[in-house]
Amino acid sequence: MFELGVVKRNIVRADKAAVDQLSRFGSATVHEAMGRVGLLKPYMRPIYAGAHACGTAVTVLLQPGDNWMMHVAAEQLKPGDIVVAACTADNTDGFFGDLLATSFRARGAVGLVIDGGCRDVRDLTEMRFPVWSRAISSKGTVKATLGSVNIPVVCAGMSVNPGDVVLADDDGVVVVPAAMAKKVADAAAAREANESDKRAKLASGVLGLDMYKMREPLEKAGLKYID
Amino acid sequence: MFELGVVKRNIVRADKAAVDQLSRFGSATVHEAMGRVGLLKPYMRPIYAGAHACGTAVTVLLQPGDNWMMHVAAEQLKPGDIVVAACTADNTDGFFGDLLATSFRARGAVGLVIDGGCRDVRDLTEMRFPVWSRAISSKGTVKATLGSVNIPVVCAGMSVNPGDVVLADDDGVVVVPAAMAKKVADAAAAREANESDKRAKLASGVLGLDMYKMREPLEKAGLKYID
Amino acid sequence: MFELGVVKRNIVRADKAAVDQLSRFGSATVHEAMGRVGLLKPYMRPIYAGAHACGTAVTVLLQPGDNWMMHVAAEQLKPGDIVVAACTADNTDGFFGDLLATSFRARGAVGLVIDGGCRDVRDLTEMRFPVWSRAISSKGTVKATLGSVNIPVVCAGMSVNPGDVVLADDDGVVVVPAAMAKKVADAAAAREANESDKRAKLASGVLGLDMYKMREPLEKAGLKYID
Amino acid sequence: MFELGVVKRNIVRADKAAVDQLSRFGSATVHEAMGRVGLLKPYMRPIYAGAHACGTAVTVLLQPGDNWMMHVAAEQLKPGDIVVAACTADNTDGFFGDLLATSFRARGAVGLVIDGGCRDVRDLTEMRFPVWSRAISSKGTVKATLGSVNIPVVCAGMSVNPGDVVLADDDGVVVVPAAMAKKVADAAAAREANESDKRAKLASGVLGLDMYKMREPLEKAGLKYID
Amino acid sequence: MFELGVVKRNIVRADKAAVDQLSRFGSATVHEAMGRVGLLKPYMRPIYAGAHACGTAVTVLLQPGDNWMMHVAAEQLKPGDIVVAACTADNTDGFFGDLLATSFRARGAVGLVIDGGCRDVRDLTEMRFPVWSRAISSKGTVKATLGSVNIPVVCAGMSVNPGDVVLADDDGVVVVPAAMAKKVADAAAAREANESDKRAKLASGVLGLDMYKMREPLEKAGLKYID
Amino acid sequence: MFELGVVKRNIVRADKAAVDQLSRFGSATVHEAMGRVGLLKPYMRPIYAGAHACGTAVTVLLQPGDNWMMHVAAEQLKPGDIVVAACTADNTDGFFGDLLATSFRARGAVGLVIDGGCRDVRDLTEMRFPVWSRAISSKGTVKATLGSVNIPVVCAGMSVNPGDVVLADDDGVVVVPAAMAKKVADAAAAREANESDKRAKLASGVLGLDMYKMREPLEKAGLKYID
Repeated sequence: MFELGVVKRNIVRADKAAVDQLSRFGSATVHEAMGRVGLLKPYMRPIYAGAHACGTAVTVLLQPGDNWMMHVAAEQLKPGDIVVAACTADNTDGFFGDLLATSFRARGAVGLVIDGGCRDVRDLTEMRFPVWSRAISSKGTVKATLGSVNIPVVCAGMSVNPGDVVLADDDGVVVVPAAMAKKVADAAAAREANESDKRAKLASGVLGLDMYKMREPLEKAGLKYID
Repeated sequence: MFELGVVKRNIVRADKAAVDQLSRFGSATVHEAMGRVGLLKPYMRPIYAGAHACGTAVTVLLQPGDNWMMHVAAEQLKPGDIVVAACTADNTDGFFGDLLATSFRARGAVGLVIDGGCRDVRDLTEMRFPVWSRAISSKGTVKATLGSVNIPVVCAGMSVNPGDVVLADDDGVVVVPAAMAKKVADAAAAREANESDKRAKLASGVLGLDMYKMREPLEKAGLKYID
Repeated sequence: MFELGVVKRNIVRADKAAVDQLSRFGSATVHEAMGRVGLLKPYMRPIYAGAHACGTAVTVLLQPGDNWMMHVAAEQLKPGDIVVAACTADNTDGFFGDLLATSFRARGAVGLVIDGGCRDVRDLTEMRFPVWSRAISSKGTVKATLGSVNIPVVCAGMSVNPGDVVLADDDGVVVVPAAMAKKVADAAAAREANESDKRAKLASGVLGLDMYKMREPLEKAGLKYID
Repeated sequence: MFELGVVKRNIVRADKAAVDQLSRFGSATVHEAMGRVGLLKPYMRPIYAGAHACGTAVTVLLQPGDNWMMHVAAEQLKPGDIVVAACTADNTDGFFGDLLATSFRARGAVGLVIDGGCRDVRDLTEMRFPVWSRAISSKGTVKATLGSVNIPVVCAGMSVNPGDVVLADDDGVVVVPAAMAKKVADAAAAREANESDKRAKLASGVLGLDMYKMREPLEKAGLKYID
Repeated sequence: MFELGVVKRNIVRADKAAVDQLSRFGSATVHEAMGRVGLLKPYMRPIYAGAHACGTAVTVLLQPGDNWMMHVAAEQLKPGDIVVAACTADNTDGFFGDLLATSFRARGAVGLVIDGGCRDVRDLTEMRFPVWSRAISSKGTVKATLGSVNIPVVCAGMSVNPGDVVLADDDGVVVVPAAMAKKVADAAAAREANESDKRAKLASGVLGLDMYKMREPLEKAGLKYID
Repeated sequence: MFELGVVKRNIVRADKAAVDQLSRFGSATVHEAMGRVGLLKPYMRPIYAGAHACGTAVTVLLQPGDNWMMHVAAEQLKPGDIVVAACTADNTDGFFGDLLATSFRARGAVGLVIDGGCRDVRDLTEMRFPVWSRAISSKGTVKATLGSVNIPVVCAGMSVNPGDVVLADDDGVVVVPAAMAKKVADAAAAREANESDKRAKLASGVLGLDMYKMREPLEKAGLKYID
């Protein structure tokens, strides 16, 4: 549940070692390692190809057309953080641009995930400051109405708590609860170990039908082959 | 964060007296009384005009195209509950129809809020079983993949915990955390007391500009009148 | 595959008895009886609550903003037909209004399914001429570019052949291939026979979990109950 | 082009007799009479079936999530006006409810067209205060940022000038420039005179193909009939 | 019409020479050469700029959130095939990633067109395995419910039969029925021959108005020039 | 208000010096310099990264699926113009491709902004002819129905008059009325002068909270810091 007008200063960030470990995997692998959960909706897209970020969430709740809380959030940033910004209404205004990116980077932030719009994408691309957003828009915002910082938010359909690990790449954005970070990182590693072997087999022409032993369950489910 | 394959049996439901008190207000009033938070996204619409429900949430996490968990949820229902169903992906299939409504009603449920599709809307309308959904669709579902019951879910952009109060009407759906139910009900009552007086004044031709004393702040903000 | 500029005069309509039999069921039941296929996308909505139609398809392929082919189609209508209109591009213009409805009805048509816009909805509602459309729009159309009549079309995501049975109600629109009409009608009847018994059991408080014997497969799939 | 922070007090309203004349027609007829132009996009829908309004536009430019200017607009209303509200960004918040409707009605307004959300739809329906909106939403708004009143706006894709005639019904919303009101009303009347004759012919089974003499142009365009 | 649970093994593929000939043209040219038909809806986008593929269709019908049939399809692939995957409901899950791409390529497939989501886009881009999809999403899928392989499907609004030629590039995806492949390839060649001459003329400043002799028809249609 | 079938030959273009001056800024800066107005909706996207154009508007009103007026517009182009094309209905067809681009460039046009679809994007990218569109689509159009050239249009939610300055880049598209061009260019310059200083401060770790003196207004608005 959202509370407005509140900034939480002390948050418990996920363990740094686990964050580093998670940062080596893709969002798809991590989401599978968690049991196929944790993803933001796929309308969240990186502003440039190859964008990649993994950090601990500082959360922001914005009001539509108002980026006041982004400045409040900047002060709460620590090195390795990623900002996760939700909005109380669907809004595509350009809440974020190169000035805020400069400020966030100066504070050590590694990226931004925003369920709203972003602007100055050319500058941000040159800076290699990665942003995942629902839109790109020149539209400016005001500083008039309070939201909150570091409260639990729902961003693009997923609940995010301050301190959670957020991993984002070309495929999307996944959230790992701080308490599960180490366990999920290990599960992701196990999963990945597995993959290169599978890839080699498939490349040699082995069928998934055989490699995953699907023929029997398919037959049981009633699959019929006809000519 | 979502966990799959889990059913929580004992949940703490909001206080019944507070639920009753809240049920007398509209979703707009309750949302304002909470500080203008708590709403599901407006794509959630009632299947018939005049639908109204207020109850304690039994939450369901569905997989796309699969309504298995709705049957699991039925067993967890107690009189006065309202089912809140989320889905792991955007999906408009008809997860719910008149048979499930019959079962839910037999268990005492007062309605359904589903971030998915609903079918048999003619029968449901005749039964006056209120449903808020993102779509109406004849499309049937399978029973093949586990979701969960009574875990925290994100439904139409809002996080809902089992036991929360959910109030839905023609204007939308609002969620009140169980622990805040009484306080919010009181705030809503205070708000409403206020409203009939305002309505009378406005009906007599008094302007909101004067009643809310807006002229000075508007001038300060720089509003210019021209002819 | 679409061919433009063609009107097929002689089409094989589904057997009338089967059409009559199918008309007694809902779109959801018929779609399930076919093996859970045959539905148009759920953005197709009736212009008034309670709309219901079942007939043999006369198909139309329209160009965006152009309703010339609707007049061509009128001549091909026989009593019991339902017009199914697709468009070569997504378009919400008002291709159809009360004049065309008057003409269609005079030719014996029982309704219209159009992947485009419809207008004069108040008049159509008074006439009880049922229409399922993707939009309601006052926007008029021209008569300048050829489409086709009675070729196979894709309407709202479903392929429809002239002569197929099209059944539409509050829940959506389902297409039954002419050759399968009788078989599907029988399957629907069997399905429905079953339903009233199930409804009674569920109303008495029996759980779907028990009635459908789901407890064992759920356990096998790994469902865990916690307190 | 939009200017913010401005209220124009003296606007030239369309001639009352022409407004009255236009009010007898549907939005589709009027739009055709203007040469098939003037419509708002079809996502603008009435909050209840049968809603109808025709008046002179008082325009409002709103900021997302902020309804301050609605109160400013109320003071500018004269009997017979209809409020046309645009927003600087796509936004579905509930900018308008029964209190504002009470105030608008007390000032003589006949309805509202808003490219945003509306709430209290049950009360508004009971009051028969007609509203066309892009959404229904309980979400409340603040009063913090200036927009404008009675400047030219773009509402749902159509430019509207203060004083223009706005006619809205079940099919949509059409805007007639004040200077053209009389001419369009006459054209609409001519068009309608024509229609009842056409309707009778079509009802008797005459085809549009013959009534509109389409057979020759269709043949010229290359239409082929096959068996 | 869709049938579930069926795999057709022997399909008639379009003539290889015609496929090769078609592969030299763009999707726009081929679609025009067919008489301006055959396109999938424009929401289907390549996962990287410059993607290009032309092959014979192996069709797949998927269930939402379930990619079981993709593995079944792999076995049916022959060199030069392109997989065309439809889904029984709108779904953006990541049905396809680098492992399946490795398998498809090992079987000789030249690309994938999927009315669903795709993941591992960075790896796929490095592999230069071209995919056209409605979304990019990390979301994993299960293997639980049967669809079909090599039945006629509707993919992104277009009906596709197994063996049809599918040509995809930056502009979109076009389907050429196997039986028409040679004829369409010839028509495309004729069209293209024409184009370079036109381009030279236009580059020299000749107007389309003159080159296409539009002045007279425009005048006839009533176009007025004013100063 | 739109009039169909009209071409205005003599339009007053914005002052060339002001256009040149404006062309040095980004769309975000210019929109802010105008008082945060003037933007087209953010669904308008460039067909390639890094696209940039600034010119005087020649406006076109298209009918859905018909690009006749684009050829009419070509004749009205003068060096430094940018074409702004609106459509009477939402339509994503490919109204524009490399042949028209060749013609437009030969006439001196610097780009195209079209509330419709565009094709031949690979060729256009190679030509570096910048286009902002709502879609990319192979779909061809006809030449059958009149629109207009150089009348006021509404393009992607913004009204554009012939001769206005249109500036487009990666962030979006902004329209500056011809009469305001010089004043806005000056305001943009002032704004930008300011920015590099701010950027340096933020890069050094100064917080926006302090640089913009936000702490006091935030406190006044009621922001609470908790631990």
